[in-house]
Amino acid sequence: MELYLIRHGIAAVRGTYTNDDERPLVAKGISKTQKVAQKLRLIGVEFDLILSSPLVRAFQTAEILLEADLSSKLETFTPLKPGGKIQDWLHWLQEKRNNNSLNTLALVGHQPDLGNWTEMLIWGSITDQIIVKKAGIVGLRLPDSREILGNSELFLLTSPKWFI
Amino acid sequence: MELYLIRHGIAAVRGTYTNDDERPLVAKGISKTQKVAQKLRLIGVEFDLILSSPLVRAFQTAEILLEADLSSKLETFTPLKPGGKIQDWLHWLQEKRNNNSLNTLALVGHQPDLGNWTEMLIWGSITDQIIVKKAGIVGLRLPDSREILGNSELFLLTSPKWFI
Repeated sequence: MELYLIRHGIAAVRGTYTNDDERPLVAKGISKTQKVAQKLRLIGVEFDLILSSPLVRAFQTAEILLEADLSSKLETFTPLKPGGKIQDWLHWLQEKRNNNSLNTLALVGHQPDLGNWTEMLIWGSITDQIIVKKAGIVGLRLPDSREILGNSELFLLTSPKWFI
Repeated sequence: MELYLIRHGIAAVRGTYTNDDERPLVAKGISKTQKVAQKLRLIGVEFDLILSSPLVRAFQTAEILLEADLSSKLETFTPLKPGGKIQDWLHWLQEKRNNNSLNTLALVGHQPDLGNWTEMLIWGSITDQIIVKKAGIVGLRLPDSREILGNSELFLLTSPKWFI
């Protein structure tokens, strides 16, 4: 099973919205994210499911992935909101992996969570040394049967600068 | 200081040359590596120095980077040959970092060494969970003053599939 962690695109500056959850993508954030989505489509990527943080900037990012035909299924998933712990969704992920019900899954969320989850999946601990930029992508291969935490393989880490 | 680890391109099949060190890149390996080099140039990457494993398939890869104007300096460096230990060149790297004599360095070499060195630089131990494909690239940011091993940041891991 392949797991993609995708960070939301460039959003309105923090503090410009009363409710931080409502900050939307800015025009540059939309266009860069669209280019990332088009490149993923060109490469032939398809997600069986996209789960997104419920925050506006993340859900808009996920909608752009959907509009680029990278998946036909998008749902919000509250464990992906900022500050979420991997333990909040790991059991769910393990069940999907065990059932072979998903081959490729994309999670759209926030930093530093995505970088930290990547570190947990690869090494089982967090050291803040994996940098996921806005509209950046992490690609991980989950082990077929072993414990997911600490045994996943990293095959992709990229920001739009290196991708589009 | 930024450190790029670049794996050689697709080479002749193992066993087809009496001396494995002399296996050259095949046509597909040359063309893919050239595309990777052109993309790096387009992004604006410049290496102050390229060091290459002395093996033919690595040195040919390094020459392609040079021909794409990514650097004006290329040297062979025996610690980069297969099976080399990071300890064989770490002291040299630390001196370069401490002198600020190099801002960007590219090392062209082999697997699993490049993936293992990446793990050592980020986490200080090897678990074979970072996958560097042929003509793939790792990008690391070294800490300004702290110990390099275990304190470097990963900002890029990509194969040609995701890059060109």
